[in-house]
Amino acid sequence: MRLLNACHRQPVDVTPIWLMRQAGRYMAEYRALREKYTILEIIKTPDLAVEVTMQPINAFDLDAAIIFADILPPLEGMGLRLTFEKGEGPVIHNPLRTPADIDALRQPNPRESLAFTLQAITLTRQELGGRIPLIGFSGAPFTLACYAIEGGSSRNYILVKRFMYEQPVAWHKLMEKLSALVGEYLFAQAESGAQVLQLFDSWVGNLSPFDYQEFVLPYSRQAIARAKESGVPVIHFGASAAAMLPLLKAAGGDVIGLDWRIEPQHARQILGNDVALQGNLDPVTLFAPIPILKQRAAIIMEQMAGAPGFIFNLGHGILPQTPVEHVAALVDFVHQTSNNIQS
Amino acid sequence: MRLLNACHRQPVDVTPIWLMRQAGRYMAEYRALREKYTILEIIKTPDLAVEVTMQPINAFDLDAAIIFADILPPLEGMGLRLTFEKGEGPVIHNPLRTPADIDALRQPNPRESLAFTLQAITLTRQELGGRIPLIGFSGAPFTLACYAIEGGSSRNYILVKRFMYEQPVAWHKLMEKLSALVGEYLFAQAESGAQVLQLFDSWVGNLSPFDYQEFVLPYSRQAIARAKESGVPVIHFGASAAAMLPLLKAAGGDVIGLDWRIEPQHARQILGNDVALQGNLDPVTLFAPIPILKQRAAIIMEQMAGAPGFIFNLGHGILPQTPVEHVAALVDFVHQTSNNIQS
Repeated sequence: MRLLNACHRQPVDVTPIWLMRQAGRYMAEYRALREKYTILEIIKTPDLAVEVTMQPINAFDLDAAIIFADILPPLEGMGLRLTFEKGEGPVIHNPLRTPADIDALRQPNPRESLAFTLQAITLTRQELGGRIPLIGFSGAPFTLACYAIEGGSSRNYILVKRFMYEQPVAWHKLMEKLSALVGEYLFAQAESGAQVLQLFDSWVGNLSPFDYQEFVLPYSRQAIARAKESGVPVIHFGASAAAMLPLLKAAGGDVIGLDWRIEPQHARQILGNDVALQGNLDPVTLFAPIPILKQRAAIIMEQMAGAPGFIFNLGHGILPQTPVEHVAALVDFVHQTSNNIQS
Repeated sequence: MRLLNACHRQPVDVTPIWLMRQAGRYMAEYRALREKYTILEIIKTPDLAVEVTMQPINAFDLDAAIIFADILPPLEGMGLRLTFEKGEGPVIHNPLRTPADIDALRQPNPRESLAFTLQAITLTRQELGGRIPLIGFSGAPFTLACYAIEGGSSRNYILVKRFMYEQPVAWHKLMEKLSALVGEYLFAQAESGAQVLQLFDSWVGNLSPFDYQEFVLPYSRQAIARAKESGVPVIHFGASAAAMLPLLKAAGGDVIGLDWRIEPQHARQILGNDVALQGNLDPVTLFAPIPILKQRAAIIMEQMAGAPGFIFNLGHGILPQTPVEHVAALVDFVHQTSNNIQS
């Protein structure tokens, strides 16, 4: 399958493409289901999670499915109370604020606390029937720590960074617990049928490279190392991390996911040819007139044509208002263009 | 004066330091004045603007004052209606949405439309009595365009990017108008007494390098070129722009301002020795215990000790809740440490 070949830097017939958050609100089918169920209900009901996972697969010629889930449910098993509030996004109702809060965290077995997603993975694998691979994923330890400490999304990450600086012992304890959970969860997803695993470090770009190295890198590395024991390739994605790409690579991953703030050929230069790359169209480019959308996609394709190991994707999740017909046009364009570049 | 020497990459006695948004809510003196006046009242009353500008100068051993102003008032002279709403930040009540909106914009003379800030600059120069230099500033054309089109701050910049993609002719017209205004405003600030000028491109990091080159770079370049005709050095600051630093340098500036997402020595490597650098401590590090704050500052000092032309600053504006005594400790530490490094 071409996505797996790209992960392993093997030749592909055409460039594989999938889109972060490809199952989501830009699709009418998804919005219809969301009229009846909350996000957490869908995630925790394997049949519904399979249905949503398959929506973009049925609509577009994508080269991978990604299991419909969220990065935050792993925190529930640790004892944090999570809801999704309208307009506000996720809220943790008992955020971590003291070393005692860290000590009180449970270390759940993801095979129990996240059984719903593992079941959904197994069911989706059957549903896909081997046509395209299924991607499992987890939030990275740092991104999970941000939510757990801030209690939601944050503008300046003052609470999480103060915790790091003021309570380093408790911080490292927290990150140990999170990396063990994340690594085991990814491993269990592979056991359940995921053929690729992606680690999302969405908030890592708010750190200086110094803080990343001291407070985060060892834990992303542990989580990725455990995930890799499954034998499945790992995609390591960080946003706003252009100047930390060598550190992300050092933490691990067969594929490094890029956001759109860097030219792909520049990333290739920095990272070398011994790792595959994924990215990196600005999600807002999907709102552009189709000729401009294609022009931007073509630049990325051309810059990535030189070396094997490239997966086309957006530089971040697809946005809710994205025009569906532009998504279809992009997917087809990437397949056609890679044929032209190769011939 | 050491800040001017650093701008020109000349030797300095000790490393100069100032802090973006150094006059602001973290200071009790500022909060006291804000009980009586709104931000716009302070900005538009030269005596009050001088008073606020001097507050951090009287409190800390800073190497430059920066005129108290805001990046958005230039838009008022073009015909946009601006207020600052509690909690929400700035709001433009008649944002630009169509090419006709662009055509209808006035091209104000900043010597009239922004006379209050120019007067405040002249008064502050007198007040400073030559002890330290005074910095003038403006928002960059792209950052102003973001506010003018989005109508306020934005999460994904969909409106501004769609405008760029869908209405390129009108976009370029808008950017012509903005760059002419910004360039002239900076020039007029130098005429009025500003000894250094900083261009803030706070939102530029939301662009791909492709979009920056096509839609933004020529206009930042025009604005900087006009500012430079005053003979005063220009600092060019962009946030989240680690992978676009060579493009920022190409647009111009004697000094490139860095945010904290890049190691300073890495930035030096990318940018070479023919430009000065400013930055780049994470503003949240000011919340850390003082020994850790000093440790982080020392790393930056050491990495920048090699080449002349360095101004210590934060990587973004100081945050409202910052402990004042940590600010004092940082300023003194930078001065003391640079003595040690040099001796």
